[in-house]
Amino acid sequence: MYTHQYLEEFTTLLFEKMGCPSADAKAVAELLIRAELRGLSSHGMMRVKDYFLLVEAGRINTKPNVRIVHETPSTATVDGDNALGPVAAKRSMEIAIEKAKNVGTGWVATKGSNHYGIAGYYAMMALEHDMVGISMTNANPLVAPTNSTSKFLGTNPIAVAIPTLLQPPFVADFATTPIARGKLAIMGKKGEKIDYGFVQDKKGNPSNNPDILLEGGAILPLGGSADHGSHKGYCMGSLIDIFSSVFSGANFGPFVPPQVAYLPLLEKSVGEGLGHFFGAMRVDAFRPAIEFKSKMDEWIETFRGAESIEGQPKVMIPGDPERMNEERITKEGIKLIAPVIKDLADIASKLNVPFKVE
Amino acid sequence: MYTHQYLEEFTTLLFEKMGCPSADAKAVAELLIRAELRGLSSHGMMRVKDYFLLVEAGRINTKPNVRIVHETPSTATVDGDNALGPVAAKRSMEIAIEKAKNVGTGWVATKGSNHYGIAGYYAMMALEHDMVGISMTNANPLVAPTNSTSKFLGTNPIAVAIPTLLQPPFVADFATTPIARGKLAIMGKKGEKIDYGFVQDKKGNPSNNPDILLEGGAILPLGGSADHGSHKGYCMGSLIDIFSSVFSGANFGPFVPPQVAYLPLLEKSVGEGLGHFFGAMRVDAFRPAIEFKSKMDEWIETFRGAESIEGQPKVMIPGDPERMNEERITKEGIKLIAPVIKDLADIASKLNVPFKVE
Repeated sequence: MYTHQYLEEFTTLLFEKMGCPSADAKAVAELLIRAELRGLSSHGMMRVKDYFLLVEAGRINTKPNVRIVHETPSTATVDGDNALGPVAAKRSMEIAIEKAKNVGTGWVATKGSNHYGIAGYYAMMALEHDMVGISMTNANPLVAPTNSTSKFLGTNPIAVAIPTLLQPPFVADFATTPIARGKLAIMGKKGEKIDYGFVQDKKGNPSNNPDILLEGGAILPLGGSADHGSHKGYCMGSLIDIFSSVFSGANFGPFVPPQVAYLPLLEKSVGEGLGHFFGAMRVDAFRPAIEFKSKMDEWIETFRGAESIEGQPKVMIPGDPERMNEERITKEGIKLIAPVIKDLADIASKLNVPFKVE
Repeated sequence: MYTHQYLEEFTTLLFEKMGCPSADAKAVAELLIRAELRGLSSHGMMRVKDYFLLVEAGRINTKPNVRIVHETPSTATVDGDNALGPVAAKRSMEIAIEKAKNVGTGWVATKGSNHYGIAGYYAMMALEHDMVGISMTNANPLVAPTNSTSKFLGTNPIAVAIPTLLQPPFVADFATTPIARGKLAIMGKKGEKIDYGFVQDKKGNPSNNPDILLEGGAILPLGGSADHGSHKGYCMGSLIDIFSSVFSGANFGPFVPPQVAYLPLLEKSVGEGLGHFFGAMRVDAFRPAIEFKSKMDEWIETFRGAESIEGQPKVMIPGDPERMNEERITKEGIKLIAPVIKDLADIASKLNVPFKVE
């Protein structure tokens, strides 16, 4: 078990040794640790190895010039200059917040970026400014459009954070597929079958094999099958792809560059790097902040009061599970699994950074 | 079979006779006819009776003062003054477009409104200005949050329209449930069972009865069951509800006023009327318009090239089915079903407007 302070200092040091300026190294470390604290370890410390191998292969720029290349009072397009995703993303969200301070809302499309971790981290940056925060990203293609066998979309997540007065904030953060890739991998390792409605085989037939992606299969969009509304999940995944790429000039859909070094770069490119999209909206751009936030409390209290189905958990407000994790794990400490500890120890040794194996 | 010109003139006259100023009557008629042309007749002429009965009952203001009550350079809150939904909504989207002309994007939250018809109509208003259009609304509660038996959310649709160069525009327009209420009613009349994953009974058990809403049941959020990601559909429906109500000051969730006169007004109110939310984003606020639009063409051409599943239809781009309907029905004419023709004839006779029964 590690304290989050220890892991954050260690991770900052690692990224400094990889060549990142201190502030950038700290941004990456904060993002990864926050994912661990929120119980989203698939986007936490296990990503250090992926990021390290990409840096080692020269596929990431550790000294980027992240900058605005186009703007209006309420918008900006940011060139991430092939930065680590969290570096380009954090700067982009800061710009969105600045724009919102000036004209009510701020909207930033980012190109030339890489894997940015948990979408919710950036959306939540808006909360302390009494703003609604929005964050989305495209991702490596694993998902087939409705009626297709082509893996053309990522699991493309979106997060929206909404400030409150006395209630904890509302934080929706979800991928636009019915199942996460990580969950499939775990079921596969256990040798278990999964329900139908999550994946299809390479010909597009329904499948209950969690390892089907290794055999040319694809994840289905949210909704599952065509007659259960998967075209709506396909719409959402497409919109997030378009906002992240067509707005910014990043690669779209099947051309999003692989975010792991063991996959070769693609031959064809239709833009620069991977893309994100961010929004910040001052709540007092719509009504006095106190009114907005107390009405948001009332919304949450109403939905907390929804009748439960007998034998099922109580109704949750988006953000509840992650917040409960964060409270618990901040106190108890972060537990890493053995393979991640081993990877971190190897990288630490290569970079000559001390690391205690626990 | 009616020409769209005939029905639009007739409908304009009907709403004028109900007391609407000419421009407002025309706005409502245009919206309803556009729904018919796009093949979405559940939101077309069959709504005239609902609107008429609400007006007759004094539950709608036919001489509203739709106005901005709060604003910043990129945002506005609009009070619909209890107008017919299409009147408040069209004016709100016009304001969003004006704001976008000035500062790149415009965002409008609307309260004191009513049922606004097809979400896509307002989103598509942005296209001729080389803007992306966004439109969403809350609606009468029929949907239960994940793990709940409480009908707390509407089918809450969202539409996003994105301009293109040579390809037809991308227009996503979808409710955040796996099935529409209208489709359930049709299956019920036919006495057919439906798949599991669309509705639940009043205790929250899975149901295959399309009439279950009449027995206290609820529609499930997109995703269907909890283990197939319905919490993501619940997140989306919640976000659309919050953007439409907490931003604007309209009623939220279970307090959205009934949009049919045969249901009594609710005892409790937490805001004013029903709410919507609109966005307009200049594409040249992010990159030169020609670049944006030709890249959007490339996105569409890529996705049209996706491999089909054998025996399944070709991959569609959002907006394809409605556009094909619009081309066909504009030529062939609008076919109304007998009960709708009868309702229109009755109303026409009451209001002393000529109507040919075909």
